[in-house]
Amino acid sequence: MSRTKRYEQLRDLLAERIHQGVYRCGDRLPSVRQWCQQQGVSMTTAQASFAALEAEGLIEARPRSGYFVTAPVNNTPLPQRSQPEQRPVHVSRWAQVKALVVGSSPQQIRHALANGLPDLRARTLLPLQRLLTQSQRQASLTHFAYDSLAGDAELRHQITHLMSHSGCMRHQDDVVVTTGCQEALAIALRLLTQPGDVVAVDSPAFYGAMQMLEARGLKALEIPTDAEHGISLGALELALEQWPVKAIMVTPTCNNPLGYSMDDQRKKALVELARRHDVAIIEDDVYGDLAYAAPRPRSLAAFDEDGRVLLCSSVSKTLLPGLRLGWLAPGRYRDRALHEKYVSTGSSATLAQSAVAEFMARGHYARHLTAMRRQYRLHRDQMRAWVHQYFPEGTRVSVPSGGFMLWLELPERFDSIALNQCLVEHQLGVAPGPLFSASGKYQHCLRLNFASTLDDITHAAVRTIGDCAREQLARRPESKAIRIRHDGDKSSSTSGLI
Amino acid sequence: MSRTKRYEQLRDLLAERIHQGVYRCGDRLPSVRQWCQQQGVSMTTAQASFAALEAEGLIEARPRSGYFVTAPVNNTPLPQRSQPEQRPVHVSRWAQVKALVVGSSPQQIRHALANGLPDLRARTLLPLQRLLTQSQRQASLTHFAYDSLAGDAELRHQITHLMSHSGCMRHQDDVVVTTGCQEALAIALRLLTQPGDVVAVDSPAFYGAMQMLEARGLKALEIPTDAEHGISLGALELALEQWPVKAIMVTPTCNNPLGYSMDDQRKKALVELARRHDVAIIEDDVYGDLAYAAPRPRSLAAFDEDGRVLLCSSVSKTLLPGLRLGWLAPGRYRDRALHEKYVSTGSSATLAQSAVAEFMARGHYARHLTAMRRQYRLHRDQMRAWVHQYFPEGTRVSVPSGGFMLWLELPERFDSIALNQCLVEHQLGVAPGPLFSASGKYQHCLRLNFASTLDDITHAAVRTIGDCAREQLARRPESKAIRIRHDGDKSSSTSGLI
Repeated sequence: MSRTKRYEQLRDLLAERIHQGVYRCGDRLPSVRQWCQQQGVSMTTAQASFAALEAEGLIEARPRSGYFVTAPVNNTPLPQRSQPEQRPVHVSRWAQVKALVVGSSPQQIRHALANGLPDLRARTLLPLQRLLTQSQRQASLTHFAYDSLAGDAELRHQITHLMSHSGCMRHQDDVVVTTGCQEALAIALRLLTQPGDVVAVDSPAFYGAMQMLEARGLKALEIPTDAEHGISLGALELALEQWPVKAIMVTPTCNNPLGYSMDDQRKKALVELARRHDVAIIEDDVYGDLAYAAPRPRSLAAFDEDGRVLLCSSVSKTLLPGLRLGWLAPGRYRDRALHEKYVSTGSSATLAQSAVAEFMARGHYARHLTAMRRQYRLHRDQMRAWVHQYFPEGTRVSVPSGGFMLWLELPERFDSIALNQCLVEHQLGVAPGPLFSASGKYQHCLRLNFASTLDDITHAAVRTIGDCAREQLARRPESKAIRIRHDGDKSSSTSGLI
Repeated sequence: MSRTKRYEQLRDLLAERIHQGVYRCGDRLPSVRQWCQQQGVSMTTAQASFAALEAEGLIEARPRSGYFVTAPVNNTPLPQRSQPEQRPVHVSRWAQVKALVVGSSPQQIRHALANGLPDLRARTLLPLQRLLTQSQRQASLTHFAYDSLAGDAELRHQITHLMSHSGCMRHQDDVVVTTGCQEALAIALRLLTQPGDVVAVDSPAFYGAMQMLEARGLKALEIPTDAEHGISLGALELALEQWPVKAIMVTPTCNNPLGYSMDDQRKKALVELARRHDVAIIEDDVYGDLAYAAPRPRSLAAFDEDGRVLLCSSVSKTLLPGLRLGWLAPGRYRDRALHEKYVSTGSSATLAQSAVAEFMARGHYARHLTAMRRQYRLHRDQMRAWVHQYFPEGTRVSVPSGGFMLWLELPERFDSIALNQCLVEHQLGVAPGPLFSASGKYQHCLRLNFASTLDDITHAAVRTIGDCAREQLARRPESKAIRIRHDGDKSSSTSGLI
C-alpha cells in the first residue's frame, strides 16, 4: 500500500476534489499543462492521472476542449437521525429476511442490489483462486483431520497483523477462527446473554444480527443513530441507566447499512461508557477493512483496556463469503468462547484457512484491499449520483465511509416492502428498511448494494427502481385510502395515514 | 456394493466363522482343496479367498501345513448396563473435553487412540481428493458467493439417497446442510429447548453432545443403557412420566461410545414412546453408515410418521472431518431449522459441498463405505484381541456393530483420568469415561479409537496402556489410603474407597 505511484496520488487528489464538489458535473478541469505546473510533475505523469480518471468514467476528454467531469456530484442530504422505540422489544421479520437469504442466486440482478455480496470478479482476487487450488492439490488427506479448535495458527497470526491496522493489539491465542462473522457474532451473544436479556443495538442495524437476537429470545433496545456520527452516546447512556442491558452490539466502522465510521473520540467514549456500566461490547467490524481512508479507522477494540470488547469479523466482505471464514477476538471471554465454538460447529474447515493465511502473508490481501477500497469509493459516488437523478424528490442518501452499501431514506409515506412487490415483475429488488429494525421501523428506507460493476444494466435497474418509487409515492395516498375503504374503516382520513 | 466377487464372499464367510469362534486362534483352517469342494468353487477362487485373509493378517500360511488362524478371538464379556443418576443434572467436565479437543494434533499417537478421527489414509478416499482439486480449479470466484441457506441442491439430493438406505424417505427440501454434525445437533437442541429444560440422553453418550447441553444451560437426564440393546425403554418411559423432558437425544445406530445398534423393534418402540409423550427425538446417526452389516440398520427416522425425529449426520466419520460438512433432516421443524442455521453460521461453505455431491453421485461413496466397514470390522477384532491380551483381568469390552470405537469397562476402583496422567510420559492417551457422562460417571471406563492401521506402533501403544492400567490397579488401594491419610482422615478404611 505504501508503493502508491505519483500519478496515482494525483489521480486520487483530483477524484477527491471532484467528490468534494470543487469540480462539479460538467465543469472543465485544469489543462494537463496547468496541472503539471501546479503539481510539479512531468507531462507524462499528469496525463496518466487524467487517463486513469477517464478510464474510471469520472471525467471525459472532449476533443480540443480538455477534460470535463462526468460523474454528477450531488449534495443530497443525509438520512435523518433515527428515532426507534426506546424500549426493549422482541425481534421479528424472519419471513422477509428469509426471502432475502434463502435460495438467493447471485446471478440474478434482482439479488445483486439487495444482497450483501462483495465484487467477486475483482482481478486482485485471482491469486486467492490459485492459492486455493494449490493448497487443495498439495494437501494430503490427513490435512482434513479436525483442526485445532481455535483455528490454523498461521491464519490467526495473520489476523492479529490485520487487526493491528485498526490499532487493536492482540495475541494470536486471543483469536478464534469461526464459520464466518455470523458465527462470531452468535458466539459472542451466547457468551454474554441468556434468553429474555436486553441487548442495546445501533439502529438501523444488520438484519442478520437482529435475527440472532430473535433466535436467542433476546430483546433489542434500539438506540437512536446518526448517519454521520453513529450511535447516540447520550441516548445509550440513558438506556444503560434505565434498562438491565447485558451487551451492546454495534458496527462502529463502515456501518451496515448507514455507512458512517464513528470518530476516535466517540469510539473511546463508547468504550468508556461501557466500562462505567460494566457492560460488554460486541463489535461487528466486518466492513472495517474496506474503509476508504488509509490508514483505516481504529476499532473499538483498540480502545479496550480490560477485554470487554469482543471483535467479530470475516473475509466474507473482503474476499469470498462462500469460504465461510471469520474470527472472533473474545477478549476476557476466551475460554468460554472456545467452549461455545466447540458446541456450535466444532473446529473450522481446514483448507480455506491455510489458503487465506498464505494470501495474507504474501501481501495479496493488502493489495486487494487497496484496489477494492478505491473501486467501492468510485461506485459509491456513481450510485449516489444515480439515486439523486432517478429517485423521488426528498430522498435522503448516506455517504458511506467504506464498504459497498447505500442507505436511502424516502418520504415517510413510502413503503419499501410494497416497492419490492412492484419490482418483482422487473426481476429487481432492494433490501427493505424494516429488516434493519427490531420494531419494524424504516419502512420508508431501503439499502442498495453497489459492489459490482456499475454497468448499463445496473444503471437501468437503478432507474427502474427510482421510477417505481416515484410511481408509488404518486399513487400512494389514493390507493391507501381505497384499501382502508375495503377494510370497512371509513373514518380514517387519508392524510392520517401518511 | 452389489458387485462383490465370489472370492470376496468366501473371504467374508471365513472371516465371520473366525469371529464367531468356529475357528479359534491357532486352529488350522480347511485345506484349499477341501474348501473349494465344500463351496463348489475353483481352486483359484478358493486360493484367492485365503490369500486375501492372509493379507489382512487374520490367518497365516505355514509351509507344508496349511492355513492357521492368527487373530486371537476372545469372549471378553460386554460392559454392564449403565446405572447413571436418574435425575436431571447439569453437565460439566469441559476442562477434560478441552484437553482432548483443543490444539489436538492428529499426528501424535497420543491423540490417535483417544480422538474421533476416521482413517484418513484410505485409498478409496483418493477420488475425493481429486474431485476437491478439480472443483477448486474449475470453480470461478462467483462460485464462492453465499450459498442458498439450505445448501447445495445436488448434495441434498445425494443425502436423501443416502438416507433412503436407512429406510428414511425424505425430500431434498427437508434437508439442511450444516457445518458438521455438531452444528446439526446444536441447531436441533436450540429448536427444541430453552435453558433449564431437561433432555433425556442415552448414557454413556458422546461428550460433544454433553457439552452442548452444558452450553445451553440444559439438564441431562441420563437413562440406563445396555451395551448390546441400547437405551432402556422402560427406564426412559418412567423418566418421561416423572420429568418434563423436552427432547430425547440418542445415538441408536453404531452408538458412540458403546458400539451397539438397537434393533428395528426397539427403534420402533422408541419412536412410539416419544409419540405417546409428544416429545421430539434428536437422532445422532453420524456413525450409522459405518455399520458392518449390509444393508445398514434402519434409522429412528425411518419409523417416524409425524416428523418428530430430527436426524443429524455428517461425512466427518466416513470421509474427512476437516471439510466440516454435515446435515440435519429437521422433520416438522424445517422452517425454524433454517432460521437457526441462518443465525448460527449463515450459509455453508460452497466448494466442499459440490465435491462431496460428485463423490457420492459417481458411486465413490458407496465403494468407500464398503471398504471402510470391512476394515473397521477387522480392526475391531484385532483391537478386542489386544485388549483381552494386555488389559487387567475383569476388563469388559464392547462389541461394536459399526464405526471405530471400543468401550472398555475396568474394575470399579480403576481411574481412567489418572491413567491418562500416567500415559503422558509415554505420549499416549485415551478418552476417559467421565467425559461421556453428565454426572461424572464411568471413571472406570475408557474409549479407544481403532480406525487407523493397527501396526506395531499401535500394538505397542495398546500394550503400554494395558500395562499402565494393570499397575494402577495393583497400586491403587495403597496409594488412595496414603492420600486420605495426608488429608488427615484416618478413619476411612482402604476397602471403603474401592
